[in-house]
Formats: sequence, C-alpha cells, structure tokens
Amino acid sequence: MDQLQLVSANKIFGGYQKVYSHESSVLKCKMNFSIFLPPQAEGDVKLPVVYYLSGLTCSEQNFITKSGFQRYAAHHGIIVVGPDTSPRGVKIPGDDESWDFGQSAGFYLDAIRDPWSTNYKMGTYLNKELFELILTAFSNVANPDRIGIMGHSMGGHGALVSTLRNPGLYKSVSAFAPICNPMKCPWGEKAFKGYLGEDKSKWIEWDATELVKKYDGPPLTLLIDQGAGDKFYIEKQLLPENLVEACRSAEVPVILNLRDGYDHSYYYISTFIGEHFDFHAKILKS
Amino acid sequence: MDQLQLVSANKIFGGYQKVYSHESSVLKCKMNFSIFLPPQAEGDVKLPVVYYLSGLTCSEQNFITKSGFQRYAAHHGIIVVGPDTSPRGVKIPGDDESWDFGQSAGFYLDAIRDPWSTNYKMGTYLNKELFELILTAFSNVANPDRIGIMGHSMGGHGALVSTLRNPGLYKSVSAFAPICNPMKCPWGEKAFKGYLGEDKSKWIEWDATELVKKYDGPPLTLLIDQGAGDKFYIEKQLLPENLVEACRSAEVPVILNLRDGYDHSYYYISTFIGEHFDFHAKILKS
Repeated sequence: MDQLQLVSANKIFGGYQKVYSHESSVLKCKMNFSIFLPPQAEGDVKLPVVYYLSGLTCSEQNFITKSGFQRYAAHHGIIVVGPDTSPRGVKIPGDDESWDFGQSAGFYLDAIRDPWSTNYKMGTYLNKELFELILTAFSNVANPDRIGIMGHSMGGHGALVSTLRNPGLYKSVSAFAPICNPMKCPWGEKAFKGYLGEDKSKWIEWDATELVKKYDGPPLTLLIDQGAGDKFYIEKQLLPENLVEACRSAEVPVILNLRDGYDHSYYYISTFIGEHFDFHAKILKS
Repeated sequence: MDQLQLVSANKIFGGYQKVYSHESSVLKCKMNFSIFLPPQAEGDVKLPVVYYLSGLTCSEQNFITKSGFQRYAAHHGIIVVGPDTSPRGVKIPGDDESWDFGQSAGFYLDAIRDPWSTNYKMGTYLNKELFELILTAFSNVANPDRIGIMGHSMGGHGALVSTLRNPGLYKSVSAFAPICNPMKCPWGEKAFKGYLGEDKSKWIEWDATELVKKYDGPPLTLLIDQGAGDKFYIEKQLLPENLVEACRSAEVPVILNLRDGYDHSYYYISTFIGEHFDFHAKILKS
C-alpha cells in the first residue's frame, strides 16, 4: 500500500468508506479513488469487487455520498471502487471551458488527439493501472476472478465499453442511464471529436452500440436502467434503444428497465441501486 | 398552496422529494424547506409527518441528498419535512464570520439580543409558522395528530428543545449526536451569548438537559443516537450523558445508543436512520 495515501475513512453500515490518492503513471497526475470495504472484509474469504463509474461533472465523491449503495454492498459483501472521472491537476488549454468536455469529462477512453493524448487515457487507467493497483493493494480481500462494473450516464458508457473491449475482465455489467451510442448524440460527438479526432473509424472502438455488434467474449447479460422522465433521455443523448437493437441482432442478452417518472439524478439511482447490487451479486457470487 | 413556490421535485422510492420556498413573516425573509411525499400520499389515508432538523453549516439540501431516509419513509408511509437552519438573505454584520454562529447556525431558538432578534426566530418559525403552513398547505395528506421530530447535532438540540418546550406538539422525538446541554459546551455558549445575551436564566429555556428537568407534558421517550468515534462527542460539544442523567432524575424515559467506531457524518446517519424511522413509525402509527 506504499503507493496509496489515505484521504478519508468513515464507518458506514458496519464497513468503511475510504478515499485514497495515488500517483498515476498513465495519467501523469495524482488521482483519488473511493473504496468501500464491507464488514465481511474482516473475514478470511476473498470478496467480489464492483467498479462504479460516475457521470459528467462528478468526482469520486458524488456516488459515495448520494447513492446509498453501501447498505446493499454491506449486505452482499461486495467491495466497491469508484474512480474519478478525468485526470486532475493537469492544465490543458480549454479543459475547464465546458462541463461536458475536459475536466470531469474523460469519457473513460484513451485520447489520441493532441493536447489531450498526454493525460486523457482514462481507458487504460481504469482497465489496467487502477485495476491492477486494486488487486495488488487489496490482495488480501479482493477476489480477482469476481469483478463487475457499473456506471451512470457517461460512466454507464464507460462500464459498457470497458466490458465489451476487454472480454472476460468484468464478469457482470450494469448501467444507469448510460450514453449508449455516443457517435450518434451531441455529448459523444463533441467528446469523440475532441479526444479522437475526425476519423469515425476510431470512434467505433469506444461506442457500446458498435462494440456489441462484434462482441466475441464469454457470455454476458447487459442490465440497462433508464428513467422515462430523464430529460437527457428525451433529448436523445442516451439512446438505449439503439443499444438494445444492436444487442438483439448480435444475440447478446440485454435487459432494459424503463422507470416511469424517474429523472437523471441520484434520487433515481438511489431508488434502484439495490436491484443492481442484487444483479451483480447473483453473477459474482455464483 | 398560493404561498408556496415549487423549487424542485424528483421521484425517489415511488414518492417525490420536493423543495419549496415561501416568504416567512416570522423570519422576514424567503425560506426553503424540503418535503418528501411517500407513495402512500396518493391514497385516502392521512399520513404521519416527521420533521428533520439539520446541523451546523447545512441547508435543506444535505439531509435529502445524503441520508437515504426516503427508502424508510416510503416503506412506512411517512411525510418528512426539512427546514433550513437559519434565516437566509438577511444581512447582519458578522453573520458570515464563523460557521457555528449566524448563517446556517440559527440553533432553532428565538434570539432576544440585537441585531439578531429581528430575524433569528427559528424557534417560532419552526414550531408555529412552518408547522401551521405544512398542515394548511398539505391538509389533504398530513395528519395533524401524528407529528414527530428528529435532528442531527444542532438539529438534534432543536428537535429535543422543540419537543420539550411544546408538550404534545410532537408525539415522537429522536436525535443523532445532539448538542444535549448547550449551556455547558463551546458551541452552545457562543450561540446563547450571541442570540440570548449574558443572562443565563434565559439560556435555561433553550437547553434540553435543563428543560427535561421540568418537563410536565404527555409521556415521551427520547431516543438519542451517538457515534462513539465522533470527535465532537470526544471534545465534549454534545454531552449526551448529561441529558441521560437529567432524564433519569426526572423519570423521563431515554434510550442512548452508542455506536462503536461511527463519526459525526451522514455516513453515520445513513446507517441508523432506518432504525429511527422504525421508532417514529411505531409511535406515530399506533
């Protein structure tokens, strides 16, 4: 644990919600991540790990203070890791000009366009550097064979893309209001143009609806949750129907739960996150 | 509802978390309050109401975004109202100089010292103006005979003092890490000197440990919750033992739950708020 500095630790539902910082060699900056260690982490059995990826404007704090997930993770005995949403403390011209690009908007991909390509490598950071760091630093409690991932909005995109690009790395995946087809929505077009450039053959590599068409890994069921009253859904930023159609044609099982009257907020997430932990527990503990 | 403006409404656990603003004649300013309407509010039966009073530095937002209470209130069918912690938008010299006096630190009392006495009447605002406003504006869903109150830290003090000063108004009361004996702790001494002046006979009227000694209302059980790892408890800002001793000598039933390893945060509150709703429901629904 030499490479980790403890930022905070709070007891909750019998476990501990912690935040650590570390120097990322991939992102070339200091990063925070959260980790919830359930009460079962005191025992001898290694536990499943679920990653949670947050949405635009978030840091590692929003999920741990607003979603109420700890109750369910404590019940099931699941470790939960929450990375930040972009590199921090690097100054790139324009990185704070808009809320949907740059800081807090890393889109969990590896930028190839200057000046972003030096630091904005959230894909490799998440699926390689942080993934390995967690398994090393928490080797006494984390089961490397039982790892899942979930996320919200931009983080739902991140969870889906991370799973589809790295077959078998994550055994279970779910998403709240994910950006399902970023090539076809304003948020995604802006981010992909900025981080990846104009060549749309590069965009296909980071778009869940495109990736699922050529998925060739272990059997996988995608759980997608969507509030029917979510204004970003109505404005067609999220496009879950496109993903569902692609899944059906590729014969990848998908569940789409449309929730009447719910919006895009953590009020919505907190209502259904217990169901998502049930879903992950059933797969990861089987 | 003419006097209320809707600020926000979000669906959560089948009910709605709303925030309203209104012009307070007691405080002479515009105030926000939150109200959670559980799914049962769509039915024909009038529902119990529980007030939640927040602590220092809070607005009406902290509790509704961080505690996860909506799950339990929805389960029991309880309306939950959360006032703000001080007058807002009034400029009084010194009101923003410290975090434990002035703005966000109204202490749920009626100030008698200038310049505070013009606006800082949170006691009358809560127990009279807002109390009546809720029963009028939500007369179709709120049961005026089944009202309880709870709070955290400064708000725990507010819940206890409001109950003890107004016998019978609140049928159930509980508190997380309340300031139990403000006359004997630095936070309380600063606030009481500022709002009430030097005459300590005035302080006794707003101190739960003093008030319980002369309580002469309907039977009442005080539920006090305290994290044993709470630094403010360790620094003797909260003094629950003084309240418990006064309750015992006055033969007022009191339950003190000391929680090993928990601190003063909403991580702690979220862990035990379900138990508090069980306690209020048992009394208010009997």
